[in-house]
Formats: sequence, structure tokens, C-alpha cells
Amino acid sequence: MIKLSELPKDVQEAVAATRLKVAELHAELPANGLVVWTAGNVSERVPGADLFVIKPSGVRYDELSADVMVVCTMDGEKIEDGTPDHLSPSSDTAAHAYVYRHMPEVGGVVHTHSTYATAFAAVHRPIPCVLTMMGDEFGGEIPVGPFAIIGDDSIGRGIVETLKDSRSPAVLMANHGPFTIGRDAVAAVKAAVMVEEVARTVAAAQSLGDPVPIEQRHIDSLYDRYQNVYGQKS
Amino acid sequence: MIKLSELPKDVQEAVAATRLKVAELHAELPANGLVVWTAGNVSERVPGADLFVIKPSGVRYDELSADVMVVCTMDGEKIEDGTPDHLSPSSDTAAHAYVYRHMPEVGGVVHTHSTYATAFAAVHRPIPCVLTMMGDEFGGEIPVGPFAIIGDDSIGRGIVETLKDSRSPAVLMANHGPFTIGRDAVAAVKAAVMVEEVARTVAAAQSLGDPVPIEQRHIDSLYDRYQNVYGQKS
Amino acid sequence: MIKLSELPKDVQEAVAATRLKVAELHAELPANGLVVWTAGNVSERVPGADLFVIKPSGVRYDELSADVMVVCTMDGEKIEDGTPDHLSPSSDTAAHAYVYRHMPEVGGVVHTHSTYATAFAAVHRPIPCVLTMMGDEFGGEIPVGPFAIIGDDSIGRGIVETLKDSRSPAVLMANHGPFTIGRDAVAAVKAAVMVEEVARTVAAAQSLGDPVPIEQRHIDSLYDRYQNVYGQKS
Amino acid sequence: MIKLSELPKDVQEAVAATRLKVAELHAELPANGLVVWTAGNVSERVPGADLFVIKPSGVRYDELSADVMVVCTMDGEKIEDGTPDHLSPSSDTAAHAYVYRHMPEVGGVVHTHSTYATAFAAVHRPIPCVLTMMGDEFGGEIPVGPFAIIGDDSIGRGIVETLKDSRSPAVLMANHGPFTIGRDAVAAVKAAVMVEEVARTVAAAQSLGDPVPIEQRHIDSLYDRYQNVYGQKS
Repeated sequence: MIKLSELPKDVQEAVAATRLKVAELHAELPANGLVVWTAGNVSERVPGADLFVIKPSGVRYDELSADVMVVCTMDGEKIEDGTPDHLSPSSDTAAHAYVYRHMPEVGGVVHTHSTYATAFAAVHRPIPCVLTMMGDEFGGEIPVGPFAIIGDDSIGRGIVETLKDSRSPAVLMANHGPFTIGRDAVAAVKAAVMVEEVARTVAAAQSLGDPVPIEQRHIDSLYDRYQNVYGQKS
Repeated sequence: MIKLSELPKDVQEAVAATRLKVAELHAELPANGLVVWTAGNVSERVPGADLFVIKPSGVRYDELSADVMVVCTMDGEKIEDGTPDHLSPSSDTAAHAYVYRHMPEVGGVVHTHSTYATAFAAVHRPIPCVLTMMGDEFGGEIPVGPFAIIGDDSIGRGIVETLKDSRSPAVLMANHGPFTIGRDAVAAVKAAVMVEEVARTVAAAQSLGDPVPIEQRHIDSLYDRYQNVYGQKS
Repeated sequence: MIKLSELPKDVQEAVAATRLKVAELHAELPANGLVVWTAGNVSERVPGADLFVIKPSGVRYDELSADVMVVCTMDGEKIEDGTPDHLSPSSDTAAHAYVYRHMPEVGGVVHTHSTYATAFAAVHRPIPCVLTMMGDEFGGEIPVGPFAIIGDDSIGRGIVETLKDSRSPAVLMANHGPFTIGRDAVAAVKAAVMVEEVARTVAAAQSLGDPVPIEQRHIDSLYDRYQNVYGQKS
Repeated sequence: MIKLSELPKDVQEAVAATRLKVAELHAELPANGLVVWTAGNVSERVPGADLFVIKPSGVRYDELSADVMVVCTMDGEKIEDGTPDHLSPSSDTAAHAYVYRHMPEVGGVVHTHSTYATAFAAVHRPIPCVLTMMGDEFGGEIPVGPFAIIGDDSIGRGIVETLKDSRSPAVLMANHGPFTIGRDAVAAVKAAVMVEEVARTVAAAQSLGDPVPIEQRHIDSLYDRYQNVYGQKS
């Protein structure tokens, strides 16, 4: 088993910084109403190492700190990382690991069971692009992924196959809930916040009538501008 | 009347520890949006004694402390426990007591009127198993119990008869609201949080279309894995 | 104009105590999600005097204190009470005053525009008694009052005519919102919290199907027990 | 480029006061549940100068302070104002600027993507006047503006053309979200809070049945009273 204490000093420092960042980012999940109890997790690649950091299984959000964040190899195996032995990585770790192995541009992954995104997942329906903020952030509809069960690579494979040809950083895994990706964990958390926001808004719109679709050329225009200009300097 | 002060020292200590735990757990009910004002209560068996601890009647959540938690016999009678005389046990005490008498494996009971779980109870419809987190936590649909009125054992009997042959730790008592059970009060509180979470999500899904059921074999697989593996070490 | 400083000492003390109580109770309105900005107000009779205390108009909840609560005669006229001159009593004061003049058993009145209670008011439909907690607290359905405009006694008259022959301490004024009454302001605030809670729950139930009515004899039984027993000692 | 440090002393002081006010008002957006992450912005004219102050682009609400508020000319160009160079004005700045240029009576503008107001915008339906509080605050229905894309004056033009002949201080820009105006930024923020409140309430009412319209003469009466009397002294 790999031991954190035997890795190069700069990797140890990168691991420590990533643990702190991932621990702090978990606070965004309850703060934005995306999770209850222990459901939901954030992970991030360790820069310059074949490792990622993820939430421990079954630990509540108000008990999370950098010290209990679990360090895993790209196969999703916990390394000897200094966390107490009774803490395992999240039960969704294999899915996160699969995404990192197959999408090298992805630096952060988030999974939640947020209410409205999960509701769309339960009816196996994508969220249609009827809001300019969806054009901005998702570049079109938010797709549904296949039904998959924990226990092999099927969740990770479903995420990657759905997202690899999509502009959307979010996939609604059928009957399960949203997974989001980003260049780092902050971007993946932002996508998790936004997918719930647009799911809630579109659900409300559908209760009022038929939301009016945005023309594809306008979606393209919104997406191009947003990705290239908005907030890029910040 | 039994007097707390005349019970063995170790029982008195167990009562004190349980009172503290039950008082603190009540904070989870408003924190998770499950209750308003005084509606909703948590109880837990005292380990090693034929006693349980429950919320006093008509006291608000921000006024609860270990000192005002009421200690009851398995018949639901308040013992002379040091709480002020004007404090009675929750008006739902008889139902909690019935559950403890008839389900020896149950160590904690929670009752709320949480919005969406109670809404399913008002239409007398079980919550169908259309979410993987329901497979995990409830092992299938969440059943409806009979209509019953406070005043005899009919609420307790309805809970026990509905849950004794079910995997679900939650029952939706008709026109009333959810009761949940667990090996201890923490587990029962978690079930109360989760039943509202899945009720809200399934209600949202039903507003969008027809939620797709999960096949029984997949439900079995989710339930077995979750009960045997997830968070067990923590 | 009546001057507070010229009233008997014990009345001045009763006014001071009521002002403090009413100021503090206003915090319950935003805390329970019943109001935004300045909409919503609480009033209470001053014991032993023909006066009541009410929120000033157009002041936000985080700026309320005992010092700015306005003291009124039973005709709804502000007395010279030490509040700054630019503060008028709530624009709903005439309605509160009418209730106090015509319902001597009422000691507190609350008005909000809470979302779901107001939604029932907008469709002119009473909230049907489909929840045991409605039987407990309201003794039946929550009635709709007439459409009335500020400017004369029509709002107060609509409240009194609707509630005087009802068990319900809440009326949904058409297109406007709920008014609630109680033996004191705390009881009226509790009714305001509960009317929104049951409105939200019944709205959710109606989105799921047809809520099952509770038989009248069961409603009577719930109401009798709750009014006579529950929390009476506290 | 205009430099803040070269403007008259009194203008510099007015800018400083406006920056502080606008920074503080942004806290109302998340506090009232109108925004997530960075979506949503407040601006206000600087009294006595052809300048306005607006939120920087891509900065989160808990990182906002007077120091990072951006100062713009009436053409929406950032002046050399002491904010760090990497901070640009909100991507909605051109729309705010257009409103200030064409509606001299407007002193504050707010834009959000609040859930229910945006849901009405997604179905291109005005919010009908079925609540007395809508009569008070909006004087009638809340209108829908045209679909418009960022990049030229079309959003600003759509806002102005919709609002210039309306009593409503809010417009629902199609597929986009609400923009609100006011004599100052506080009034525009209040309108943003109220438009979401009434959108949520009317959506709930529509889920229950057909909301009953208020007669025009009653709307006129409500609006006249509220604009002329309510809270005017405060």
C-alpha cells in the first residue's frame, strides 16, 4: 500500500492543500441546500500526482475537516494517508475514479441527490434548455445517464459516456441523482449548485405551462460568450 | 410511582446520558426543516433498564434541555424523574411505548409532521421506490399505516403492524404523519430526515411526469449492499 | 390625544411589558418563513386597559424593538406613546382594532401574507380538514373570508363574521392572506405558523392526488382532546 | 479614461457612499433566497454625477465589499475607480446603463434569476394581479419583456419599452429573469423581493385552482392608497 509519508515532499504538500480545499468545499453542499445528512460528496485531483481526495463514507458535514478527507489512487484505493483506519472513502469513489481515469481534463467531481435534479432523474427526462442561464452554464439541455448500480464501473462509465460528447458539466444519472464535473472542485461544485437551480426553476415553469425553448443559435451565442468572457479574469 | 433517585446508580447514569442525547437530537428536527413550533418528538430506550426518555409535551425546541426530558416506564407512565411537575410526556408517548414493548430490536422512535411525508399520508399513498437512495435506506416503498386516533393503543398498533414485516424504518400514518424507528434514536432521526427527503423528491418527480420504478432485483441489491457495507465501520 | 405618560403607573408598566412581548414575537414571523420585507404584523391587548400594541408601518423586522411598537386605542388611534412621530401604526391597524372591539375573548391578532395560506385565499377555497393536526388546532376546515379593501371596517368585519361561529382561529381573507386570533399574541402567532404549515402540506397533498377527508366525529374527538388536555399544564 | 481620484471631492464622497450602500444591499439577495453563487446584481446612480455603481462580475456574495464595487459611466464603461484591474463590471452592466440613460426617474436597478419569477419568464406569461399585495406594490399584472441576448442594447431596450408605460417596477425578461427598478437601489431590491414573493404565491395558487382576479377598480384603489400613504413617513 502506498504511504503518504513516503511520497515526495511536494506531493505531500499538494495533498495537504487539496484536503483542506475539499473539506471546505463540502460546506457548500448543505449551505446551498443540496444535501441532507451524509448524502453527497466532492473530490479533487491532487495536482502533480496520480491521486485524488474525497469525502469519507458516512461522516456528517459538520464533522468534516482536512484531517478526515481520504486520499485515493486513480483506481479508487485508499492510500495510507493518516486518516483514522475506520474511515473508508465515499461509497461513490469508484465512479469518481473512473471519471478521472477517462477524462484527463476533469479536475473535480461532485455528486449529490439534490431534490429537483434527482426528480428529473427519476422520470428519466433531460432538463430542456429554456433559460438563458442554462445556455450560459450548460450550453444546452442537461442529459440523463443510464440506470446503473454501485458495485462495478457502470456508474462511472455511464457518466463518462454521457458527458464526453456534451457541453454540459452535469449528468442526471437515472433514478439516482446528478454528477457534475469541472476543471477543479470549485467548478464542479458550482455546476452542482447550478443544476439544482435550473432544475427547480424549470420544474416550476412546467407547473405553470409549457416553457418556451431557446433557439439553438441563441444557445450557441450565450454559451460562447459565457465560456470565453464572463468572469474569466477573476 | 417509581423514583429515579431510588434506582441503581448505573441506571441513573444511563438515564442521564440518554436524556442528554435525546435533548440534543431534537435540534435535528427544526435544523432539517421537519417541524414547526412544538410538533414532533424523539424518544430512546435507556440501555439496561425498562425505561425510555421522550420530549415533554408543549415545550418549544429552543427550550429543550436534558433537564426537561421526561423518563417513562414501558407503559408510557412518567416516573418521578426530577422534571418539573407541570411537564407531561409528549401526547404521542403511548404510541412510542407500544412500539418499544412490541419491537424489542427498536431502540429509538421519532414522530414528525414533515410536509411531504405527511402529504403522502393525507392521500393514503405509499411512496414508490423510484430512487436508488430509497433502495439503500428503505429497501422498497414506504408504506401507509391505518387511520388511528390518540387515546388508546391504536396508533402504536398501526405502526407495529405496518412495520413488522417491512424493510422500511418509516410508516406514513394515514392523515397524520410519519413515524420512524431505528436501533437507536440517531438512526430513527436519520430515517425521519430521509423519509422527508425522498417524499419531497418523489413529489417533485410526480409533478414532472411518471417516475420510473426500479426493478425489485436492483432494489434488493441496493438494500443488501447499503445495510451490510455502507458506513458500518463508522 | 391620550398621553402614555399621563396614564396610571400600572397601565404604563403593562404597556411596557406588552411592547416588549410584541416586539419579540415579530421575530417569529421571519424565523418561520411567514413574511418578507415589512409585510405582516402582530398585535396584543394591554391587560387592564383599553389599549393594544401593534407594529409600526413600513419598518423592517430587524429594526423592531419595544421602543418603536405603537400603542393604540380600541379605535385604532395612536396615542402619544413615546415612539418617534414619523412612525404610524401598521396599515392593518383598523382591522386589528375591529377584532378587539367585537371579540372580547381575543387578546392577540396576527396578519401575514404567508405563501400557501395566501394561495388558498387567491383561489377562494377553504383548506379542507385532511390532517389530524388540523383537527387538533383548527377543529375543522380553515374558512375563507370576503374580499375587502383597506379604508373602512370591511376587513375587520369580514374577519369577525367569518370567525365568530367557527372553531378555527384563522381566516383566509380572499385575495389577501391569513388573519389569526388567539387568547394572547403567542397563541395568534402559533395559529399563523400552523395555518401556513397545514396550507403547505395540503397543497402538496393535492398535487399528489385527492386528500382523504377525516370523518366529523374524529375531527370532534381530536379537537376536544387537544383543546382540553394538550400542553394545558405548560 | 475618467479617474475617480481626479473628480471633485464631493463626487468622490458620493461615490464612496454609494459603493458602501450597494455592497451592503447585495446581502439582501441571498438573504431573501433570490440568488445562488454569483447570479444577480444591484446598481445605483451616484447622486449628482453621471455615474453609477454596480457589482463586479464573477465575484461571490460573501466576498463583496465597498472596495470591489465598480464605478461606471452612463455608457456602462468602468472608470479608473480603485478596484483591482482584474475586476470587470457585471456582465449585465449595459442593460443597467441603458435603463439609467432612458429613465431619468430611476435611481436603482436589480437583476436576479429568482426561481418563480424566472419560471413565469420561461413560459412567457405575466403574473396576473390576484393578490392585494400585487395591487399595492405593482398596480396590476407583472409584464413579460422580449427575448433578448447580451451583446447589444436589446436587453436594456426591452426593459425600458416594457416598463415605461406600466405601473409595475418589475419586468420578467423572457427566458431570462426579472429586472426591477426603483427611485433608489433599496426600492429596486424591495421590488425584486416582492416579485419573487408574488410569483411563488401565484404559482402555488395556480396549482390549487384558478386564482380569482381582482377587479380593476379595486386594483386602482389599492395602488393609489399604497403609493400615497403607506410608509411614506418612514
